[in-house]
Amino acid sequence: MQYHVDGELVDRERATVSVEDRGWRYGDAAFETCRAYGGEVFAWDAHAERLERTCETLGMPEAVPADLAVRVAETLDANDLDDAYVRVSVSRGVQPGKLTPREEVDPTVVVVVTDLPRGGRPAAGGERVWDGHAVVQSVKTRKPDASALPPDAKTHNYLNSILARLELRRASSDAYRPDEALLRDAEGYVAEGSSSNLFFVDDGTLKTPAEGSLLPGITRRTVLDLAEGESFPVETGQYTPDDVREADEAFLTNTTWEVRPIATVDGIEMGAGPVTRLLQRLYDDLVERRCYGG
Amino acid sequence: MQYHVDGELVDRERATVSVEDRGWRYGDAAFETCRAYGGEVFAWDAHAERLERTCETLGMPEAVPADLAVRVAETLDANDLDDAYVRVSVSRGVQPGKLTPREEVDPTVVVVVTDLPRGGRPAAGGERVWDGHAVVQSVKTRKPDASALPPDAKTHNYLNSILARLELRRASSDAYRPDEALLRDAEGYVAEGSSSNLFFVDDGTLKTPAEGSLLPGITRRTVLDLAEGESFPVETGQYTPDDVREADEAFLTNTTWEVRPIATVDGIEMGAGPVTRLLQRLYDDLVERRCYGG
Repeated sequence: MQYHVDGELVDRERATVSVEDRGWRYGDAAFETCRAYGGEVFAWDAHAERLERTCETLGMPEAVPADLAVRVAETLDANDLDDAYVRVSVSRGVQPGKLTPREEVDPTVVVVVTDLPRGGRPAAGGERVWDGHAVVQSVKTRKPDASALPPDAKTHNYLNSILARLELRRASSDAYRPDEALLRDAEGYVAEGSSSNLFFVDDGTLKTPAEGSLLPGITRRTVLDLAEGESFPVETGQYTPDDVREADEAFLTNTTWEVRPIATVDGIEMGAGPVTRLLQRLYDDLVERRCYGG
Repeated sequence: MQYHVDGELVDRERATVSVEDRGWRYGDAAFETCRAYGGEVFAWDAHAERLERTCETLGMPEAVPADLAVRVAETLDANDLDDAYVRVSVSRGVQPGKLTPREEVDPTVVVVVTDLPRGGRPAAGGERVWDGHAVVQSVKTRKPDASALPPDAKTHNYLNSILARLELRRASSDAYRPDEALLRDAEGYVAEGSSSNLFFVDDGTLKTPAEGSLLPGITRRTVLDLAEGESFPVETGQYTPDDVREADEAFLTNTTWEVRPIATVDGIEMGAGPVTRLLQRLYDDLVERRCYGG
């Protein structure tokens, strides 16, 4: 496997960053997780825009290189990958010892890829990348308040999500293996999963927590657009864990999982219903149309 | 310069970590900043203990290598350094793509050093490492709540402090150059500086924010012990920015700055008074006694 580091393709073993890089020292870096289908990166413009916005939030508005899409394409090509997971990171780079960032930034840009199965319609050979429906457990770890860390910036400061996943480890037994943590905001309203956004269907309406304390995912946006395109009632708002547990259907979204049904929340059965299945189909169709020419 | 990476001394240019290391990907790492005086790392046991505690919080209780002190000594020796800044990092290491950490950890351990002037008593040749008294500005960025990120864990997730420092950049002019940000907790009480703890003297009592939303520094602890050793009245509690601005003296502490007087807070003059100077002298004496055999 070859990765793209600082403008060059290098073998995986040689894909490294300096221990003086602020991405390593402080998690002082922006990133995006994308998915390539048939050699085409899905929703690239939306990912590139969010990466720009994160870099602006981090005070390095010029850090994203103009040829980033080319670097991604080169990395896919070098590994002969059409269907892949793609992670793009832009750190503030190596700067001398001070915590205060310098204005002039020589960013470190890294592209990492991994093989994935073909996506899109199952009938066309598309496979899901998850093992089964999600087993979701709400956790004690809360989302940081927006006054402490901007929720819409996707950065290498990812410990909040990791601490949530570590709670799952402690909650696990042979009989119960939650694989996604559900985090609430400081006020106790449901925010998001540790690496996913949450949707549920209640009374014929598709509901998802409003922005404010969550990372508004690109897949979340796509699913909202698909539902609105079908004139399906959609609502964003503040919801309690009970609202979710009492819903008719529930699912998670992120770039790699796409639309992943939820089996249980805190042990309570949810399961995929007709709305979840419709949205999966619409999403698959979109992927076929945009990326596989189908 | 040579650094210690993963059990080996390597030249600075070759001191790197994999882009698959979780320390890079997520800031999933613990660290300590120490100071060596005359070849002796000050308060090593306290730093080593806190590093252990941080690793426990991160769910990797066995990650700190038993020979860490040896690695630090080897790094100082290799660079012929007696007086130095020492940064020790322990990351969860390289693990495959998943966010959920594996239980088995092969940590990446990094020791980075930088030359510093001799510390201790000025009369013995000790020099301060700061340029002048601190110009402190309170910022809008708040400390994350303990329910989101444990404040007593010192990790590579350091963006909260960086965002605070970036606010200083925007507040700076030719006439005003704040160099430390003062952060409040979610309730609005003063917590700490972006890389320091805060003390102030009011009505003959030494005051510092109580634990709960701040990183309890080793230097903070040392200063509290020194004051108590002199039977000087000490209080920890919840304080407002006004409490600080109206104080008689104020100073910051961290491992490299030691006791650094504050010139101004939000433009209001503070300055070093007799208590600050006494504590500087006691700290210098302790360094001489413990490390320089004086």
